[in-house]
Amino acid sequence: MPERVMECQRGKGESMFVTFEGIEGAGKSTMMNLLARHMRAHGNTPVLTREPGGSQLGRHLRAMLLDSRQGALTMQAELCLFLADRAQHLAEVVRPALQAGQSVLCDRYIDSTLAYQGYGRGMNLDELCQMNLIACEKLLPDLTILLDLPVQTGLARAGRRNRKEGTVISEGRFDSESLDFHERTRKGYLELAAREPGRIRIIDAGRDADAVFADCLAVMENFAL
Amino acid sequence: MPERVMECQRGKGESMFVTFEGIEGAGKSTMMNLLARHMRAHGNTPVLTREPGGSQLGRHLRAMLLDSRQGALTMQAELCLFLADRAQHLAEVVRPALQAGQSVLCDRYIDSTLAYQGYGRGMNLDELCQMNLIACEKLLPDLTILLDLPVQTGLARAGRRNRKEGTVISEGRFDSESLDFHERTRKGYLELAAREPGRIRIIDAGRDADAVFADCLAVMENFAL
Repeated sequence: MPERVMECQRGKGESMFVTFEGIEGAGKSTMMNLLARHMRAHGNTPVLTREPGGSQLGRHLRAMLLDSRQGALTMQAELCLFLADRAQHLAEVVRPALQAGQSVLCDRYIDSTLAYQGYGRGMNLDELCQMNLIACEKLLPDLTILLDLPVQTGLARAGRRNRKEGTVISEGRFDSESLDFHERTRKGYLELAAREPGRIRIIDAGRDADAVFADCLAVMENFAL
Repeated sequence: MPERVMECQRGKGESMFVTFEGIEGAGKSTMMNLLARHMRAHGNTPVLTREPGGSQLGRHLRAMLLDSRQGALTMQAELCLFLADRAQHLAEVVRPALQAGQSVLCDRYIDSTLAYQGYGRGMNLDELCQMNLIACEKLLPDLTILLDLPVQTGLARAGRRNRKEGTVISEGRFDSESLDFHERTRKGYLELAAREPGRIRIIDAGRDADAVFADCLAVMENFAL
């Protein structure tokens, strides 16, 4: 991966682009909310956002992509919809926030494409990297927190959440995939982290929320020093 | 471009995948309808389809892409939506028809991406070729008919059609682009045809429909012999 390309290069105390990755039920949104609260208590105003669905276009696409009732999308069509969402989200939400000096905490980004479409669905990783870079115009995160936990623990958590929220707004499209699919996705994330240990930090998310949050905070604070 | 990759290789009298390209107002759908009528009169049952909008997903995407009231999509998001439409359309419509022995006449395909996003919008042509090939899984047309005419003639025709049909079902997204954009697109098509003279045949579409149809028929019949 090339280095992050940005109009304003980050320095101490400047805005950061942090992405959160992991299989369903890893606790990404919980950690993002806890980190945002902590940052606000220290005078920062981070932008919390997510893919798919962070832009107006994205909200339409998210419904198409994640609704488990949607008919069979081909792997290629699915990929292209995620990339369209990413391109629009960057232009409407992520870049403007970073340029205005706000940090961005984003639930899923380029690594989700590599983990789910690449390792999960078996699409060619080099091709996915190329398409990712075109869609995101080479804007890489400063830091990626990978919340790692056993697949069955994650899916059990996601199942409880989905029954509460209804499948349309959940990540239902992937919840219905096989256990093996999620195992490949988890393994993919760990391989990506091994390739880019500077950017991607693995945190054990199978513990209680306080312990996971303490680790997230330590990673963020070490990174921002 | 690699050669067409197909389960069944085409021979004399077999099904053909023919695409129609050209700027707005070139008369693509008129020619497709005339050719289909001719083919039916000779015992064939061609499938007529189009991009964007040839699949169920595509009809949603077409509305997003071509509605001139839609907010500003980034070039990258626009590209990815067209590619998602293409991938789904191939899987749902084009491949099944070809595999069932039917010829397919398709209004716009991979060359539209190169002409509009590449030459028109200025995106990198090599990157577009790569993304096209991934989305279409390397299925190239047997024959592409490029209906070429002066931009101002085409836009005047498209303007009359759009006032009649309403912008949502027209190609309104591109009608509102500058004259210069359409000139670059037309020039792009001609350059693509010069690169692939075997596949892409240029027909002067600035004449009356009977003359254009006679040329289309001659190209199709020569090709199918």
